[in-house]
Amino acid sequence: MDKYTHTLSMKVRDYECDLQGIVNNANYMHYLEHARHELLLARGLSFAQLHRDGIDAVVAAVAMRFKCPLKSGDEFMVKSWFEHQGVKYIFHQDIFRASDGRLSIRAVIDVVCVVNGQLSEVDIL
Amino acid sequence: MDKYTHTLSMKVRDYECDLQGIVNNANYMHYLEHARHELLLARGLSFAQLHRDGIDAVVAAVAMRFKCPLKSGDEFMVKSWFEHQGVKYIFHQDIFRASDGRLSIRAVIDVVCVVNGQLSEVDIL
Amino acid sequence: MDKYTHTLSMKVRDYECDLQGIVNNANYMHYLEHARHELLLARGLSFAQLHRDGIDAVVAAVAMRFKCPLKSGDEFMVKSWFEHQGVKYIFHQDIFRASDGRLSIRAVIDVVCVVNGQLSEVDIL
Amino acid sequence: MDKYTHTLSMKVRDYECDLQGIVNNANYMHYLEHARHELLLARGLSFAQLHRDGIDAVVAAVAMRFKCPLKSGDEFMVKSWFEHQGVKYIFHQDIFRASDGRLSIRAVIDVVCVVNGQLSEVDIL
Repeated sequence: MDKYTHTLSMKVRDYECDLQGIVNNANYMHYLEHARHELLLARGLSFAQLHRDGIDAVVAAVAMRFKCPLKSGDEFMVKSWFEHQGVKYIFHQDIFRASDGRLSIRAVIDVVCVVNGQLSEVDIL
Repeated sequence: MDKYTHTLSMKVRDYECDLQGIVNNANYMHYLEHARHELLLARGLSFAQLHRDGIDAVVAAVAMRFKCPLKSGDEFMVKSWFEHQGVKYIFHQDIFRASDGRLSIRAVIDVVCVVNGQLSEVDIL
Repeated sequence: MDKYTHTLSMKVRDYECDLQGIVNNANYMHYLEHARHELLLARGLSFAQLHRDGIDAVVAAVAMRFKCPLKSGDEFMVKSWFEHQGVKYIFHQDIFRASDGRLSIRAVIDVVCVVNGQLSEVDIL
Repeated sequence: MDKYTHTLSMKVRDYECDLQGIVNNANYMHYLEHARHELLLARGLSFAQLHRDGIDAVVAAVAMRFKCPLKSGDEFMVKSWFEHQGVKYIFHQDIFRASDGRLSIRAVIDVVCVVNGQLSEVDIL
């Protein structure tokens, strides 16, 4: 029994790999962001529309542990769940390699909402 | 005597290299875009400010020839000049490796201005 | 009846959009590259494996025409076919927006093979 | 008196900004990586050469706090220092906006060395 409420299947694209032949670290943040935005969409919320409405969901903090690098051709799942604490949405996001289910990275991402430049308690989720 | 009116010196960042150990092709478009925006700034025009003013300079066509790949640690110059033809600004941009002056890529980029979603003859440069 | 022999369905990720709110031009090169590598894989060829075998498929020239920008949330298809001319593989790649089939960009990409640093007529496809 | 032993001056490139008009979070990881690699170079170590020598410096953990977003045109400094603890190099990296010295992000990055696929105590710095 796990806490994840959202799963997104993705595949490494070669341009995401760097000269070490593994996915460059920054791209994991891209994967996680895309998974959060898909999670939002699954609940009827568009990141782009929120922005046009004057509500910007921004990342306040990131903690990531890298366990096993993804490589060219790897398929993987981004599994996410979140909790609401005060002004923060805390996203727990883990990435698993599809071929063997091995944990690739573990991440905790704090997101806050900024409305007209001010930190806000707006309830988006 | 050359036609270039703008030169920007840059250096390859390792994350721009892919698993072949050379700069990924898409990053040359980033280099060229950054050089065009610096050229605009040198003339008092900000790409971001233009956007806020409702004027979007957008690329309509790209032609690039790749001559010599840049690698980790390479310094290079992006040299640019442009001409105005009807609704188009045609940017001629070449990238040279700093160590030996060798041509890395040659590019021609057509840029048009879109104002409120419509192609426009607005004169920005 | 069209010439395309490969179709890849993709979806815009928000981080691929820039401050104009549309997909940044360089990302279309990423989309096209990923589609070419998937086309290779469908024929049993891995770009990463080719590199490890000492064969580097590199882009020699790019011509792209931008017709209609993709935006946050857009799904799209990259449709490709290629021909072999001397040392070159010429890829014809078009991107269509899924919602209405509208052409987003049209591209022609020349790829050559480099073996041990030398242009080669190696027949990979 | 601060502990920083390395400073790198950089400038936001427009393609690094996303549809919110601010630098996309993943790009801060790029900035930090580039600063670490320049710090290595200043000590005569090349990340690419290390890789060719069979030594891969890889990120094991990242902790970042985002304080103030960078925007189009912003210049900034990445200030870094590191300590060596067992098999880990712990990099402390802060980014400051140049215009007013305001802290943009604070980061701690754990790096380990992998030699022939095994975690190693090799002493690179």
